[in-house]
Amino acid sequence: MRVGVVGNRDYDGLSDVLATLRRLAPELQLELAFEEDLHGLLDGAELLESPGSVDALLTLGGDGTMLRGARFLAGREVPLVGVNLGRLGFLTDIPADSVASAIEAVLEGDFVPEQRMLLAGSVRRGKKTMISATAMNDVVVSRGAVGSMIEFAVTVDGEFIYSLRADGLIVATPTGSTAYALSAGGPILHPALQAIALVPISPHTLSNRPVAIRSTSKVEITLVRGQDARANFDVQAHIQLDHGDVVCVQAAPKPATLLHPKGYRYFSMLRQKLRWTERAS
Amino acid sequence: MRVGVVGNRDYDGLSDVLATLRRLAPELQLELAFEEDLHGLLDGAELLESPGSVDALLTLGGDGTMLRGARFLAGREVPLVGVNLGRLGFLTDIPADSVASAIEAVLEGDFVPEQRMLLAGSVRRGKKTMISATAMNDVVVSRGAVGSMIEFAVTVDGEFIYSLRADGLIVATPTGSTAYALSAGGPILHPALQAIALVPISPHTLSNRPVAIRSTSKVEITLVRGQDARANFDVQAHIQLDHGDVVCVQAAPKPATLLHPKGYRYFSMLRQKLRWTERAS
Amino acid sequence: MRVGVVGNRDYDGLSDVLATLRRLAPELQLELAFEEDLHGLLDGAELLESPGSVDALLTLGGDGTMLRGARFLAGREVPLVGVNLGRLGFLTDIPADSVASAIEAVLEGDFVPEQRMLLAGSVRRGKKTMISATAMNDVVVSRGAVGSMIEFAVTVDGEFIYSLRADGLIVATPTGSTAYALSAGGPILHPALQAIALVPISPHTLSNRPVAIRSTSKVEITLVRGQDARANFDVQAHIQLDHGDVVCVQAAPKPATLLHPKGYRYFSMLRQKLRWTERAS
Amino acid sequence: MRVGVVGNRDYDGLSDVLATLRRLAPELQLELAFEEDLHGLLDGAELLESPGSVDALLTLGGDGTMLRGARFLAGREVPLVGVNLGRLGFLTDIPADSVASAIEAVLEGDFVPEQRMLLAGSVRRGKKTMISATAMNDVVVSRGAVGSMIEFAVTVDGEFIYSLRADGLIVATPTGSTAYALSAGGPILHPALQAIALVPISPHTLSNRPVAIRSTSKVEITLVRGQDARANFDVQAHIQLDHGDVVCVQAAPKPATLLHPKGYRYFSMLRQKLRWTERAS
Repeated sequence: MRVGVVGNRDYDGLSDVLATLRRLAPELQLELAFEEDLHGLLDGAELLESPGSVDALLTLGGDGTMLRGARFLAGREVPLVGVNLGRLGFLTDIPADSVASAIEAVLEGDFVPEQRMLLAGSVRRGKKTMISATAMNDVVVSRGAVGSMIEFAVTVDGEFIYSLRADGLIVATPTGSTAYALSAGGPILHPALQAIALVPISPHTLSNRPVAIRSTSKVEITLVRGQDARANFDVQAHIQLDHGDVVCVQAAPKPATLLHPKGYRYFSMLRQKLRWTERAS
Repeated sequence: MRVGVVGNRDYDGLSDVLATLRRLAPELQLELAFEEDLHGLLDGAELLESPGSVDALLTLGGDGTMLRGARFLAGREVPLVGVNLGRLGFLTDIPADSVASAIEAVLEGDFVPEQRMLLAGSVRRGKKTMISATAMNDVVVSRGAVGSMIEFAVTVDGEFIYSLRADGLIVATPTGSTAYALSAGGPILHPALQAIALVPISPHTLSNRPVAIRSTSKVEITLVRGQDARANFDVQAHIQLDHGDVVCVQAAPKPATLLHPKGYRYFSMLRQKLRWTERAS
Repeated sequence: MRVGVVGNRDYDGLSDVLATLRRLAPELQLELAFEEDLHGLLDGAELLESPGSVDALLTLGGDGTMLRGARFLAGREVPLVGVNLGRLGFLTDIPADSVASAIEAVLEGDFVPEQRMLLAGSVRRGKKTMISATAMNDVVVSRGAVGSMIEFAVTVDGEFIYSLRADGLIVATPTGSTAYALSAGGPILHPALQAIALVPISPHTLSNRPVAIRSTSKVEITLVRGQDARANFDVQAHIQLDHGDVVCVQAAPKPATLLHPKGYRYFSMLRQKLRWTERAS
Repeated sequence: MRVGVVGNRDYDGLSDVLATLRRLAPELQLELAFEEDLHGLLDGAELLESPGSVDALLTLGGDGTMLRGARFLAGREVPLVGVNLGRLGFLTDIPADSVASAIEAVLEGDFVPEQRMLLAGSVRRGKKTMISATAMNDVVVSRGAVGSMIEFAVTVDGEFIYSLRADGLIVATPTGSTAYALSAGGPILHPALQAIALVPISPHTLSNRPVAIRSTSKVEITLVRGQDARANFDVQAHIQLDHGDVVCVQAAPKPATLLHPKGYRYFSMLRQKLRWTERAS
């Protein structure tokens, strides 16, 4: 089995986990390939050049590292395994000190697979496509630092929904519904629900509440007014928007697959992360 | 064609619309049958005895009258046509003065059909089912007048979600998502989305945000604590709850079908009802 | 010094704290008088008959016990000391195992006094006053178990504010702003701010947002529509409302005084209770 | 009487109102002075050079023009009169076609004066004050276009409140509470309430709810983390923030005075602007 490894060098525990992995590899007949950033840290390690060359991708860090991993895979059907080097994540649920047993479990097929919808987004300027990118959490259109609200027209499958004056709009997957969209007042969408959430950020009209639509729908957002508006994809790819630019978002053809440790349950994770039932009277 | 008629006598315009209908019937070869409440008002009219005996059900009033109509049909595949005698409704979109042309359009098949998911709910006490009912908007568990918050445990498909302390919980269809659930802070679910929203009412824990799940899921709510708790189905059937009572909710086997006038578009109706893009700067 | 004691018998730790108090009393030259409910538990204890007869009131339990204590004082200038027998409260901040040192500190004047505004509420039916009561948290008008929303007209100092269709309205003090009003979406009002919050519960009109007004204002709420509406004062006194009944609320002439342990800081307590800065990424 | 005039040239009706004003001036013994921007449009008009030289300031445009007028006065005790050239504003309530009668009413003292608290804000970098400005609505710290949330520490009168991860924080006056702060979920503060609202923008921690404090308090916001953060004052003055920069906000020594037409009532204006009692069932 060949496993790719991506990681976030900002976490203290990274080198320990990397050492553990390299020590385990021969014994488990595991071939490891490291992304460029990690590769430089490791003597004699193999470089992860193409996402298509591995059977699984191990992400070492937090939820952001997982998003980067998903982005790196760019829609290929390679499962993701998230090791958490900080606090428990919404996505990354293997503690650093369980890496060895988690890897073994994966090799033995002893895990809970979960599919997560991805978004395929692009920005169209006239007839030209300026950028295309996938996102696991969200595609966000928002105002920049200067000026106040921006205004944009939103359609779903060609049907006009509204002309929105706001700080921005979050187009989120169920995975993204517990990230930025939640802070902006959006609902939690269960990962098995084939839905996309449209969550306005500080909308001028108070009745502009979050809307959830089918994941087969196509969303288009046209910038009408406002200086310094931008679109981003999982906060990783950014583009400045001109008036008339159209941000197109729909579900990506293939979902990502996460491999969770045995016993994983979505709501159990959520209870812990959101401290449900914990506010004292 | 045989058409059943239900109506709300609180609306001033009711008698005019009833007169129009009876005048039109012979000319359009329409057989009309009126629910008991209306039947008493009309000389020589036929009584609507069974929901299964009609080809369509005309509801005269507001959205509440439509809910009552759907409840009357109890899951039969009879389409609903909603005439609005007050302000534009979320569900009832035929103005009183367009009844004639709307009826003709329906007879000619010139309408936009739309399916709306229904909920099938019941309350279980020990081994006994205390009540079973369908709901087009929502099944609501809530505290009564006395005492403060109630506490209940919620599971989805047998998986424990949370133990909630709140004024109550709204289990809403996409149709219900623009009714009471919206007032309680829930998201708008597009009617084509096969989803159920769980919307806490004034939850004690601030992170207990609305959750949307698949419509194939089964929700169970067990009352744990609190005096004077109740469940209701579209605010039409009510039951007092004891500790240990379980409120079970899932999608009804068959959806309701609404017949809208040509040109109907969901988001266009929503824009008008919620006055989107209308709050002046 | 003469100290009154009220307590909630539902807490396990109550008898231990009572025993500690009685043991300490002679040594500290403390005269203790117990409310009727506790008095029955204690041999040879003195009964607390009148709130005016003590120099301080000790409440043993949670925030609810403190509310009951404040209600018992009915506006008299007797300071309250809250011992918490459960989890940390918003109001009661002396842990059960620090009772001895807290009492000593109070006797030595070594505490942080804090004034909290109270509400004086009443319900008027025609020319008759049906009930009068004070509240430390809130006066709440809400619907009962049957029926849906209620409708009521609200004025502030005689000026009409709105006609509200909702599950109810919370009129809250700054103290109450972190209780029920917070669950219903209200703002946190600092205790030193002389303000009253009007927080609608699940309002039909989405722009009916919480409003904060001066504490010198007089609020009147007239029930216009709805069955089974009620008013309550700190969830302790209740009254059923008829159409036309007017619920009058204004600041009580005198505030309550809480005695906090040295080092008490409002925002520090809030951070702990609301787990600010604790949701992991 | 000497009246200064500021106006927004984007409104179509501006030139008509200016013509009306100049026609009326001699008759009413009114001396008019126009801000530079308008001055260029008008033959033989007098230039408004100093805010201290006029008895009243007339603003022609929308609420934004009024904010600019208040800013121009920079704390001087000159009353503001707002003429609305677009839709009714929260602040500007004289319709364009009532300018003549409104001016006459002001000259005759026949108006409703209302005081509005202003904020005095500044940004401190080390020992240096980088900018000082007044604001009628709000001082806003927010993230820029690049990167995600920013993190900052907030103190009130030197007491630490929280370390906030969010898109930003709005420090709003009662006047500003119905502007941007309302979109971000803040409460409405009555203009007579001497309070400042702290409204987090899309906070990471869901319990970071809006807080209202006394207007005598001093707020300090220190940027801890985040690229491209900024502060703005009424969206009119902007400054880029470095880590460690401190944004200081407190009430300005003197309020602004608005002159409203006879019959003005705050809640009546609010009802109209927010369409209270208007969402149909």
